[in-house]
Amino acid sequence: MKYSFKNDYSEGAHPRILETLLQSNLSQQNGYGLDEYSMNAEVIIKQKINNPKSKVYFVSGGTQANLIVISAFLRPHESVVSPATGHIFTNESGAIEATGHKVHSLETLEGKISSEDIQELIDVHQNKPHQVKQKLVYISNSTELGTIYSKKELMDLYQFCQESNLYLFVDGARLGHALTAETNDLTLEDFGKYTDAFYLGGTKNGALIGEAIIINNENLQEEFGFHLKQKGAMLAKGRLLGIQFQELLKDDLYFDLARHANQQAMRIKEAFQQADCNFLCETFTNQIFPILNQSQIDQLSANFDFYIWKKLNDEQSAIRIITSWATTEEVVTTFINEIKNLK
Amino acid sequence: MKYSFKNDYSEGAHPRILETLLQSNLSQQNGYGLDEYSMNAEVIIKQKINNPKSKVYFVSGGTQANLIVISAFLRPHESVVSPATGHIFTNESGAIEATGHKVHSLETLEGKISSEDIQELIDVHQNKPHQVKQKLVYISNSTELGTIYSKKELMDLYQFCQESNLYLFVDGARLGHALTAETNDLTLEDFGKYTDAFYLGGTKNGALIGEAIIINNENLQEEFGFHLKQKGAMLAKGRLLGIQFQELLKDDLYFDLARHANQQAMRIKEAFQQADCNFLCETFTNQIFPILNQSQIDQLSANFDFYIWKKLNDEQSAIRIITSWATTEEVVTTFINEIKNLK
Amino acid sequence: MKYSFKNDYSEGAHPRILETLLQSNLSQQNGYGLDEYSMNAEVIIKQKINNPKSKVYFVSGGTQANLIVISAFLRPHESVVSPATGHIFTNESGAIEATGHKVHSLETLEGKISSEDIQELIDVHQNKPHQVKQKLVYISNSTELGTIYSKKELMDLYQFCQESNLYLFVDGARLGHALTAETNDLTLEDFGKYTDAFYLGGTKNGALIGEAIIINNENLQEEFGFHLKQKGAMLAKGRLLGIQFQELLKDDLYFDLARHANQQAMRIKEAFQQADCNFLCETFTNQIFPILNQSQIDQLSANFDFYIWKKLNDEQSAIRIITSWATTEEVVTTFINEIKNLK
Amino acid sequence: MKYSFKNDYSEGAHPRILETLLQSNLSQQNGYGLDEYSMNAEVIIKQKINNPKSKVYFVSGGTQANLIVISAFLRPHESVVSPATGHIFTNESGAIEATGHKVHSLETLEGKISSEDIQELIDVHQNKPHQVKQKLVYISNSTELGTIYSKKELMDLYQFCQESNLYLFVDGARLGHALTAETNDLTLEDFGKYTDAFYLGGTKNGALIGEAIIINNENLQEEFGFHLKQKGAMLAKGRLLGIQFQELLKDDLYFDLARHANQQAMRIKEAFQQADCNFLCETFTNQIFPILNQSQIDQLSANFDFYIWKKLNDEQSAIRIITSWATTEEVVTTFINEIKNLK
Repeated sequence: MKYSFKNDYSEGAHPRILETLLQSNLSQQNGYGLDEYSMNAEVIIKQKINNPKSKVYFVSGGTQANLIVISAFLRPHESVVSPATGHIFTNESGAIEATGHKVHSLETLEGKISSEDIQELIDVHQNKPHQVKQKLVYISNSTELGTIYSKKELMDLYQFCQESNLYLFVDGARLGHALTAETNDLTLEDFGKYTDAFYLGGTKNGALIGEAIIINNENLQEEFGFHLKQKGAMLAKGRLLGIQFQELLKDDLYFDLARHANQQAMRIKEAFQQADCNFLCETFTNQIFPILNQSQIDQLSANFDFYIWKKLNDEQSAIRIITSWATTEEVVTTFINEIKNLK
Repeated sequence: MKYSFKNDYSEGAHPRILETLLQSNLSQQNGYGLDEYSMNAEVIIKQKINNPKSKVYFVSGGTQANLIVISAFLRPHESVVSPATGHIFTNESGAIEATGHKVHSLETLEGKISSEDIQELIDVHQNKPHQVKQKLVYISNSTELGTIYSKKELMDLYQFCQESNLYLFVDGARLGHALTAETNDLTLEDFGKYTDAFYLGGTKNGALIGEAIIINNENLQEEFGFHLKQKGAMLAKGRLLGIQFQELLKDDLYFDLARHANQQAMRIKEAFQQADCNFLCETFTNQIFPILNQSQIDQLSANFDFYIWKKLNDEQSAIRIITSWATTEEVVTTFINEIKNLK
Repeated sequence: MKYSFKNDYSEGAHPRILETLLQSNLSQQNGYGLDEYSMNAEVIIKQKINNPKSKVYFVSGGTQANLIVISAFLRPHESVVSPATGHIFTNESGAIEATGHKVHSLETLEGKISSEDIQELIDVHQNKPHQVKQKLVYISNSTELGTIYSKKELMDLYQFCQESNLYLFVDGARLGHALTAETNDLTLEDFGKYTDAFYLGGTKNGALIGEAIIINNENLQEEFGFHLKQKGAMLAKGRLLGIQFQELLKDDLYFDLARHANQQAMRIKEAFQQADCNFLCETFTNQIFPILNQSQIDQLSANFDFYIWKKLNDEQSAIRIITSWATTEEVVTTFINEIKNLK
Repeated sequence: MKYSFKNDYSEGAHPRILETLLQSNLSQQNGYGLDEYSMNAEVIIKQKINNPKSKVYFVSGGTQANLIVISAFLRPHESVVSPATGHIFTNESGAIEATGHKVHSLETLEGKISSEDIQELIDVHQNKPHQVKQKLVYISNSTELGTIYSKKELMDLYQFCQESNLYLFVDGARLGHALTAETNDLTLEDFGKYTDAFYLGGTKNGALIGEAIIINNENLQEEFGFHLKQKGAMLAKGRLLGIQFQELLKDDLYFDLARHANQQAMRIKEAFQQADCNFLCETFTNQIFPILNQSQIDQLSANFDFYIWKKLNDEQSAIRIITSWATTEEVVTTFINEIKNLK
């Protein structure tokens, strides 16, 4: 069978997580997120982001996190601004609209948006109340194109949102990979400080399932549990989520796993560079988008699986190679050898 | 007070409508659309569109018509395709999304879309079920820019929709103006034949309020009354809507009123042309968009009201002049004289 | 044709309203509720309720008023408490639930609820956040059974709501009839004082269409216009609503019409009493519910139309007789004569 | 620490499930339910219910299963009928209404409803389209009170639903316990035959998380995946759900675990009976509701945790004792000894 570089959720969980599940298995715990593990994981996360006023809620997946946060934060007439590449705009089957809210899209160069982009959108929506009211800005870090925001970019966005009466919400399904990229200058603390809310992805970084939603804006914390319940996200055995985040974050495991994924992606990136390939955009996280011609794609496809991300012209396409905590050095070495043989 | 060319709903109703309201006032009628007038108006409309299998429902306004039709036709995971200039996309405060459905927008040249535009959108939404399912195409005729569809364009769109398992729904808030434009080659019968549903606007063409929704696709007629009721659109005194449409359509009043509005707009258009003005787009209905510089705008604004539609550059803007059944020849003549004096 | 006592919206509008529509017809006005008539009607209403901080919004019908008010006031996890006979619970085709909110029902004796009833409901919903949060109390005055609240009852309910962090919203589709009942001790001012919001019904008291929503609670006024627009309730020719309420309320017409309806109902009630009939409940407004046996019903049905409201046993049913501003003294006299002949 | 009889989800997963998670951990699998384990689990379930035309979908919890099934099956104007004790009516924070649908409640004796109850409800909702349209009947087996449906009861309900154009949907969060109760005469095959859809609960019977939704009605299977995605229920690592159901159902583990739970509950029930206690209702599954006075409750509370389910009078309350696959014989023996000492 071919080795797959198609996504970063092909395997199960990091062994340490499975071990902790085994060890804790017969301890009786309260249900619905009131177990000791979840409460402990919340304490750890609040320490790591250095914001004692934040609150933490665990859910099972990214689409669920996005739709609950957004529908809980907004009143019926308020809308969301998202990059056109944003997961909520293109890949969640209308989940946000299904909760009643319009999602505006902004064209972007590399999956990122700026305050200027947002202001322009607001400027053409001045005919109130005939036009919907923009209220929440959604971004991802790392983005769907593997790019990351700099500290200045995040701070600028947050300041703009504060001044414009907008919430800033960051989809962190791959936040670990963003924070361990070699070009990154942001920290977890910055996300506790310069966002209204964000989430820390577990599924794509070593957990079986799970995303940790962190709400910094105290007004938005109020009665959030109702929304989790109403949207079917409050697991009876919430312990499953708490145990995993406790294990990932009690030391540096979370970041070690992400860094490992990035490093393997960077090794592959270097090999493509040495083979004189161009890229759809420059990335330093666990996703790379080399541009290949069809015969090169066929050659690599013989032993490896990956997505063709975007057809660029009759000859060339950008493919996506994505690595994870579970990608071994050995398989990457084998892949690199095949890249070296590309014609 | 200045005369207003700002919109086509500044006055009340055509006198014949008010007279009929007076005459019918004390007749006792069933409520909720089961009155004799509404039933009679339905018969007349079905004759005019020459489709005995169609059903007709009266509602009080355009946003209401759009949101009820769309939410009644779609299942939760289905979305709408609209021109970026479409009323539902830009000017209804998120009304469609509030019923749970995503609205995709297509960039257009003059407010119109083609099957090629739609196919392109569908092509980039192939990752089902992660991407929402396109199911209904929304267009307006005349469009928000005053342009109109030709018979060939409508037939092509309908054929494409039929082949692609899409519904075609036409917002006809200004359908009267479209059908009486000098360049028009469509008839009411064509709308009974080449659409799944459309509506015939009353508010902007002589009625106090009211739009007549016509559903041609028999599968979509089923239990439609529930949706009217549930969305608050079923008037206790539904007679108010029935009486007006009966009066507008029992002879050619509806089209006479629209034609009058168009003619006044064309007189003004000609005056601007003779003053060497350009236009945002070429129109033959009751909306025109001449491009003026600021001093010209100031000059005309002295005695007339209108919207500045779009700022084109530091000097020039397109304004919108809109006429209606109530616009008199005299006031247009006065306005034309002012145009002649433009510097 | 039989005369109908089936409902209070069988005829058109009071002649004074039609006259004012005629007179104002060609005045150019701003659209969407910004016309002079609507603004003037708001001023008049605020004077009548003696609450300068209230805001007034006009919509076309009762279901529309209910669904917009409730969905605008509540966050997604909040629910409504209603009498089991409440219009929103039984007769609006799930309109409130369609906006996402649960409606709890309370069994009642005569269509009215008390703070004790509500407290009992809250007591069995203490398992938060697994159980939904009660936030708004909906009542009607007069009720769907024609009964009315006393001043003490309204004040008690409002005080309880204030203490319990609940909103109190009154459906006033027939508020005119309630306030002019001979047993009434409430005033319009009381509704400006002891509710968070209420509406004043036009459709059932002389208007063609229209209900005036009055929001007293300033926090709930914020951005209410968006909700009107989003739900399709903002009429382009909002003047139609403003003119009618201006005419109804600039003097005592509104109350004169309601009083007339009540008086005719009371004449009929007295006739049934003299014929030794019982009633489903005792009412002093424009609805009465005499209990008849089948042969009596058949006898009255020969020349008059009315609803059989509730089958009580194999022989007897309560019927509903409802009068309006348009019910003439003459027709009532004729009806009374038939009642006198009942066997 | 006290031993808890508060619920059947206090522990983790059955050891065999954890072992299989370990063994399969590094196998690369497709995401979003297209993994080998999920596909295999579907095959096994379809064999067990003996309905090759059924389709199976795995989700993470019961509220999620309920809200997705119901919102996917219904059009906007359709409602749900539920026992007043139904989980969706009382304990899901308005989750069904949040998807736009009214839930009617039927008073019941022991958590169960019959076709007569439903017909009565339909009879008082005949004023269409003003009254919402009933379309889906929701029941639980075992019920929230631990009672179960007989084969005749289920068949009668299904036949009634078929004749009345209603869907029958069974919440099977504790279906294992129902099917292994000593008084049960239903089989899994019956649920594949006499329901439109049902689900098989994993969370309360040995899994970490997970419910298997089985849709028998082929019309309702269409495009169901979109609803899973849109509601945030489609796990990237769907393998987690597939592996667990494969393990539970590949032999009789699922039923062995449920039977064990029932047996422990029956041992406790017998002890209460011998202590001359009455019960809120008679049950043969893993929930019992003995009626105790306050001093007895205090006595048992010293070493054991349980819920006080219902206060019956000043002295007596029904408590709920619930057992699970993880309840040991030893702890039950200890508890029984304490019951024997009750005064």
